[in-house]
Amino acid sequence: MQRPTIQNRIAEVRKGLKGISLDTAWIINPENRRYLSGYDAMDTHFTESSGSLLIGSNRLLLIVDSRYTTHAEDQVPDFEIHTLKKGFADEFPAVVKQTATNNLGFEQGYVTWGLYNELSRSFDAFSPPVHLRPLDGMVEDMREVKDEEEIDALERSAKLICYVLDEVIDTLDPGLTEREVAWRIESLAREAGADGLAFPSIVASGPNSALPHAVPTDRRLDQGEPIIFDVGVQLDGYCSDMTRTVFLGEPREDFKKIYATVRRAQLEALEEIRPGVESNHPDSVARGIIRDAGFGRCFGHGLGHGVGLATHEGPRLSPLKPKKLKKGMVVTVEPGIYIPGMGGVRLEEMVVIEQGGARILTECDHFYDFTS
Amino acid sequence: MQRPTIQNRIAEVRKGLKGISLDTAWIINPENRRYLSGYDAMDTHFTESSGSLLIGSNRLLLIVDSRYTTHAEDQVPDFEIHTLKKGFADEFPAVVKQTATNNLGFEQGYVTWGLYNELSRSFDAFSPPVHLRPLDGMVEDMREVKDEEEIDALERSAKLICYVLDEVIDTLDPGLTEREVAWRIESLAREAGADGLAFPSIVASGPNSALPHAVPTDRRLDQGEPIIFDVGVQLDGYCSDMTRTVFLGEPREDFKKIYATVRRAQLEALEEIRPGVESNHPDSVARGIIRDAGFGRCFGHGLGHGVGLATHEGPRLSPLKPKKLKKGMVVTVEPGIYIPGMGGVRLEEMVVIEQGGARILTECDHFYDFTS
Repeated sequence: MQRPTIQNRIAEVRKGLKGISLDTAWIINPENRRYLSGYDAMDTHFTESSGSLLIGSNRLLLIVDSRYTTHAEDQVPDFEIHTLKKGFADEFPAVVKQTATNNLGFEQGYVTWGLYNELSRSFDAFSPPVHLRPLDGMVEDMREVKDEEEIDALERSAKLICYVLDEVIDTLDPGLTEREVAWRIESLAREAGADGLAFPSIVASGPNSALPHAVPTDRRLDQGEPIIFDVGVQLDGYCSDMTRTVFLGEPREDFKKIYATVRRAQLEALEEIRPGVESNHPDSVARGIIRDAGFGRCFGHGLGHGVGLATHEGPRLSPLKPKKLKKGMVVTVEPGIYIPGMGGVRLEEMVVIEQGGARILTECDHFYDFTS
Repeated sequence: MQRPTIQNRIAEVRKGLKGISLDTAWIINPENRRYLSGYDAMDTHFTESSGSLLIGSNRLLLIVDSRYTTHAEDQVPDFEIHTLKKGFADEFPAVVKQTATNNLGFEQGYVTWGLYNELSRSFDAFSPPVHLRPLDGMVEDMREVKDEEEIDALERSAKLICYVLDEVIDTLDPGLTEREVAWRIESLAREAGADGLAFPSIVASGPNSALPHAVPTDRRLDQGEPIIFDVGVQLDGYCSDMTRTVFLGEPREDFKKIYATVRRAQLEALEEIRPGVESNHPDSVARGIIRDAGFGRCFGHGLGHGVGLATHEGPRLSPLKPKKLKKGMVVTVEPGIYIPGMGGVRLEEMVVIEQGGARILTECDHFYDFTS
């Protein structure tokens, strides 16, 4: 990441803090941390953080334990690196104190109740005390609109998963198990230079395709049944996310009708995406088409979500909490129809919102035209 | 997992709850959840749980969203499956209410401050209100002592990573990068049937070996320098964790001395491990040997940790918070010496504590004898 980019983001956080009368932001969400500092260490366990940022009006600190010091020093020139000598909860309050902070913003969805309580006991004992105040998604909101460097990274991430899916679909055979195909996706992705998968691949065949969140099994692929691939990689931190539904041989008539409906819902929703549109509108267009085709109860999830450093981020394209879409947002468009016990179809594109409308980043085909 | 095993564990939780005057335990830690129910769904994001257990005196509930219903029903016969229709925070309080709970135990290290607050607003509005009370590691404590089925799984997991490391070390060449070797470890592990890696592999060569938590880089392996492999897989949910330090060709004299010291510290610590010993004692034996050899400041981490459904769990073998070791505990023994800028050596075995002492599960060699 460019250093001026980081400096601009820090300036925006500082402005945001001022607006809600906070002195300092404490950032532990790994994606927010990377977005504001470039620090790319991963948190491998829920309870083991690889670092926290403190963004105050005059100081920028990255607090790590000694396992991460060298990496942090190499990678994060804009922040002072503070290496913990004791446990986090024991030492963090004193570090905050050095930054002349009275009101500390924290990420309420990432700080556990246990840690909050340990820290607030220490903060309350200070004179004057330090108050912990929720940041309420300040950085998550900033991350919704992507800059050019981010769009470039997302486009490369999408191209990589398209390459992988092309390879996999072109060599697909009945007799392979879902698990074998999923492993092939992961190997190809890693060998092509991905940091890793953005999420565990879904390869769901036959009745398993009716489960939106299916885990690959030892079931063998068969002719004529839907096979859903919901896949994505991470590249330079940025995620891709796409879905295709594929048939080996000729699908049954009922699946053709379902497929054609989902595809039409997707194409018409894509037409509605542009700056200024409310985020629930494309969802309602897709949902209407699916309902009118008689599958109203078979589309249980939202139409899409933002993609960036996280696979799932804002804005959501769903019936709830509408907000205006903006130029530079990157979202998925993924209607689906699922018939329990029988199977399902989901189709997902990842698009960047430009002045003229949605530009597709997941440019690989593997679509069918079953409309006739 | 055997159903009587689950029923015994549930009975133990119920007894524990009674002892601290709680009606019901709410379990979201994915390892605790699996331990008490057999439910193996993974939580792929910090903020996206694939389910919660409620263990009350008369009822057992597994609460999931609709993506997980079928999998939960198939896999968890001992629990009623409750599928959420609204968001978790909106619907969970009413589900708890159905279980006639006044005091609900929760995992303070897994519930975020944000969720705690949303829930307690709802709970406070009930009459009588529901009180949230920390569970204080009740299930984590139970998990420290493994039963036969668990020891068998851990042994198979250890055997699998030994097989992989044998393959990798036997075909190691100068010129390969750390990242290439790490990927080979992961591919071999997956192809041999692992669920996945237990943690991102460490392949740290030359000066990188001085970083206990090194991330594989594009650095090429070279003759005579230490190469640390810290690796593990997950198999049927159970983790393995082992470390070897390997040299291509003849090591420098200083590394020979460091290696011999670490190995002696490890062997002598292993001798001290048996039921009834305090968990800080083997650490202090290893630390003493390293200190007496002149490397006292170069061993910054604890000697070891428990391994089970999580890679890192109780008991810790460290100077802090000693507790008595018990038959059936599975722990690592991993002393190390790290010289910043130069390199390091770490050696790690995973052992089960039996009546007669420590039995090594990570039975592969690749040790050197530099004592002469």
